[in-house]
Amino acid sequence: MAEGSGRRRGRPGYDLESLLQVAAKLFYERGYDGTSMDELARRLGITKAAIYHHVSGKEDLLRMSVDRALDGLFAVATEAEQMPGAAIDKLEHLVRGSVRVLCTRLPFVTLLLRVRGNTEVERAVLGRRRAFDRIVAKLVAQAEADGDLRPDVDPAMTARLLFGMVNSLIEWYQPRRASDDRALADAIAKVAFDGIRVPR
Amino acid sequence: MAEGSGRRRGRPGYDLESLLQVAAKLFYERGYDGTSMDELARRLGITKAAIYHHVSGKEDLLRMSVDRALDGLFAVATEAEQMPGAAIDKLEHLVRGSVRVLCTRLPFVTLLLRVRGNTEVERAVLGRRRAFDRIVAKLVAQAEADGDLRPDVDPAMTARLLFGMVNSLIEWYQPRRASDDRALADAIAKVAFDGIRVPR
Repeated sequence: MAEGSGRRRGRPGYDLESLLQVAAKLFYERGYDGTSMDELARRLGITKAAIYHHVSGKEDLLRMSVDRALDGLFAVATEAEQMPGAAIDKLEHLVRGSVRVLCTRLPFVTLLLRVRGNTEVERAVLGRRRAFDRIVAKLVAQAEADGDLRPDVDPAMTARLLFGMVNSLIEWYQPRRASDDRALADAIAKVAFDGIRVPR
Repeated sequence: MAEGSGRRRGRPGYDLESLLQVAAKLFYERGYDGTSMDELARRLGITKAAIYHHVSGKEDLLRMSVDRALDGLFAVATEAEQMPGAAIDKLEHLVRGSVRVLCTRLPFVTLLLRVRGNTEVERAVLGRRRAFDRIVAKLVAQAEADGDLRPDVDPAMTARLLFGMVNSLIEWYQPRRASDDRALADAIAKVAFDGIRVPR
């Protein structure tokens, strides 16, 4: 959506994507509240005017940055909901796709996971994040109703632990080849769905 | 260890534990680098002198706070290493015990997991954290050598995902009754070791 807004005009220096990556990193490190446009301009080594060439302000930067993450996650969620098959298979598709989004949009997902609701734009972000969590919760509940998920763990907790494991990627993931990302998604799906223990 | 250092003299106002909890929360929110003793005094509503009654300075506050977390985790790791039985059972003991430490020392573990190595005291903290991770990695490698862990996921990744799930608690855990914490440790152990899927 941001690319379609006519703001990306190929100005020399930073393009919109690089600008958003640096902004996301700074918001993550300092907090959105604690980061000024002056600081961002200093970090980028450009003028504030050059930033305003791309975006209307700090809120715009936050919204565009987390939308990079959220749009990716919602695209995967829509795929999962629309695919044929059992809820547990849709859930596995969602987990694998989410790992892919984390790997390819790491700074944006990292920022998304650190947003707290101190300002209106942050609260809007949290609202979208909760909407994604509701899709996960619905699939988990359906899979449990189908008898495909262990009944001895509360579905809300199952959903939290599943995405707790997925999201923990941001702590240690190092961008690598796309084929490695696929192997990572496989490993996470195996561990999450079938556990680390060899059944005896 | 801090309690034994003679600094806790029952002065009215904040005791050492409450002081450390507030400091841990502030360091977490603002970053250790970005937090001054002045700010901490303001947040506590006491004078800096009252803080220096308990601790020698900011480094002392960080070290004591994360030691609350690390001492708990190392105590559990030592228990796990010394118990009789297979490595996989020791690993499960370590996971359950770590959940208990997270639940009972939440602000300190939260801070520990956010420490970056910008200063010498932070780097020392990361060193202790890595020593804990090595204990986990050793138990995972032993359990895999015993044939008790799935061989199709790299042991280093197994260790990361396992504690990724455990540590994700800090995002949503709300302190409750101790019996609920035990149920939580059970749920996490089940999900981590045996997966969320019902075998067919």
